[in-house]
Amino acid sequence: MTKIPVSVLGLGRMGRALAGALIAAGHPTTVWNRTPSRAADLDGAVVAPDVATAVAASPLVIVCVLDHAAVEDVLAAAGPLSDAVTVVNLTTSTPSQTRALARRVPSYLDGGIMAIPSLIATPAAVILYSGSPEAFAAHRPVLEVLGGAQHLGADPGLASLYDLALLAAMYGMFGGFLHAAALVRSTGRPVAEFTSALLLPWLSAMLTAVPGMAEQVDSGDYAARDASLAMQAGTDTITEVSREQGVSAELYAPMRALMVRAVAEGRGGDDLASVVELLVRPTVGGAG
Amino acid sequence: MTKIPVSVLGLGRMGRALAGALIAAGHPTTVWNRTPSRAADLDGAVVAPDVATAVAASPLVIVCVLDHAAVEDVLAAAGPLSDAVTVVNLTTSTPSQTRALARRVPSYLDGGIMAIPSLIATPAAVILYSGSPEAFAAHRPVLEVLGGAQHLGADPGLASLYDLALLAAMYGMFGGFLHAAALVRSTGRPVAEFTSALLLPWLSAMLTAVPGMAEQVDSGDYAARDASLAMQAGTDTITEVSREQGVSAELYAPMRALMVRAVAEGRGGDDLASVVELLVRPTVGGAG
Ligand SMILES: NC(=O)c1ccc[n+]([C@@H]2O[C@H](COP(=O)([O-])OP(=O)(O)OC[C@H]3O[C@@H](n4cnc5c(N)ncnc54)[C@H](OP(=O)(O)O)[C@@H]3O)[C@@H](O)[C@H]2O)c1
Ligand SMILES: NC(=O)c1ccc[n+]([C@@H]2O[C@H](COP(=O)([O-])OP(=O)(O)OC[C@H]3O[C@@H](n4cnc5c(N)ncnc54)[C@H](OP(=O)(O)O)[C@@H]3O)[C@@H](O)[C@H]2O)c1
Repeated sequence: MTKIPVSVLGLGRMGRALAGALIAAGHPTTVWNRTPSRAADLDGAVVAPDVATAVAASPLVIVCVLDHAAVEDVLAAAGPLSDAVTVVNLTTSTPSQTRALARRVPSYLDGGIMAIPSLIATPAAVILYSGSPEAFAAHRPVLEVLGGAQHLGADPGLASLYDLALLAAMYGMFGGFLHAAALVRSTGRPVAEFTSALLLPWLSAMLTAVPGMAEQVDSGDYAARDASLAMQAGTDTITEVSREQGVSAELYAPMRALMVRAVAEGRGGDDLASVVELLVRPTVGGAG
Repeated sequence: MTKIPVSVLGLGRMGRALAGALIAAGHPTTVWNRTPSRAADLDGAVVAPDVATAVAASPLVIVCVLDHAAVEDVLAAAGPLSDAVTVVNLTTSTPSQTRALARRVPSYLDGGIMAIPSLIATPAAVILYSGSPEAFAAHRPVLEVLGGAQHLGADPGLASLYDLALLAAMYGMFGGFLHAAALVRSTGRPVAEFTSALLLPWLSAMLTAVPGMAEQVDSGDYAARDASLAMQAGTDTITEVSREQGVSAELYAPMRALMVRAVAEGRGGDDLASVVELLVRPTVGGAG
């Protein structure tokens, strides 16, 4: 089977991983990067001198640059695009930025990469897509080279919304870990041992409670089963012990404040998931 | 083998689970609760009319009440304690509160319950202990009835410090999930489906990065391997998309602020774990 040619615009940490995976899978790969030197050592790729040349080289163009402003710069240099070229934007963007691009690019897919560069092309990498279902169906085989490809729907904003939701969850988990690590380090004990012996089993066990919380959010029924907000918000031992140990509790502070507000609003008999109701403000322009 | 008698002071959600497990395991169990009616339907327990009677009934006394102030109230009513009675305090406390108790109670163990009541006496429950190694060795069999028992050291403050570190990590993870849930709900799509299909595999995959972060914290070498702080802090798409969707980003805000501060301090080429250095202030009284 002939492999379709692909162009990759942007050779940062992620772009290089994407281009490397395509080259390894045998796709004729054209690359472009703003700073040309970063393209030099990518064996097997054709280096294009400018964006327009790179776009002309392939029916599938992957854009992975720093941010949305960089995507705008790159696409401005591409010139007019026809529907013979599918643009897959793997740069982290907001749903509204993504929808604006989709109005200008005839064949557009947005993607959210749920992986770090070293996991690209491994079974651990998942990439969420949204936008043109036809483009996704046509290019699915090559997209699967990069990681498990999931199409969420025709609204091009969905992939970035789900991407950012997952990133928010990740930063929450990492932030909680870093607070814990600072506390353990304050005792002079190694963080690595605490992490493998206690933290990983604990967070894995707590993760099993998350689907139940999701059901509570969907149903709106938060009646406490195991640990009431009143009990959890009663004292602030996490902040106290952090202060005693010389560790900032700033990552925990907003959760604490939410629990206290929830109890003040009469949610003391609810489970923790109840605080989600305090995060939702009247919607100004939905994503759906 | 005769089972040793145990007294349980405090019959809230957790105390009831503990007493129930001891009764089920065949230990003669005496219980006391401030509000006596909560003791009425615990089949198989002897209900003590006051704290002193409950303490006199058993060589092992488990205290599990709301908070440290409640522990003080309960122990004040217990009268003088001899070293023939081991007190195991499973109430969430700070290390300094715990050390103060250990100075007054001749045979003292502190414990941090890493489980919800419904998991007590299942393999998923872990209880961390610190304080008297002799008391732990003597009572380990009965403590194992409640959940996997781990003794962290003779410093009575260690169990509560590790307990609170794990709770901080849990609140981080749950907070991240609730932010994600609010974002998904803002699209009108079910949170349960997002959670099982995308969030759980994602957080499980991200959890595998945590031991590497722990090593970075121990070594102080944070050189970015996959995703630099400069890239992560470059734009604030999580806050932007939250605003667009009418969702508060308050749970993410302090992590965002930490990343921006870290970049400003010259840590832009570091991995995320580098922000732990910004959480640690000069220690005022360590735990170790
Ligand atoms: N790394 C990860 O773990 C990860 C994971 C998931 C998603 N992502 C997303 O992938 C994208 C790229 O991340 P990365 O880690 O590869 O970042 P990076 O290593 O910092 O690379 C940034 C890339 O963007 C280019 N760039 C910046 N501004 C530009 C402009 N105005 N015009 C043209 N090119 C510009 C840079 O070109 P120069 O070489 O000329 O500076 C470089 O190729 C980001 O949106 C990120 O959120 C990354
Ligand atoms: N539930 C969990 O998931 C969980 C998990 C790990 C650790 N813990 C810890 O376990 C402890 C108990 O939690 P819980 O869920 O059982 O709480 P709970 O259901 O709210 O019960 C609180 C208990 O404390 C008693 N109490 C409160 N103030 C008192 C005082 N001044 N004097 C005497 N007794 C007093 C209450 O007695 P009355 O009946 O008279 O009000 C009740 O028995 C807490 O420290 C909590 O952090 C709980």
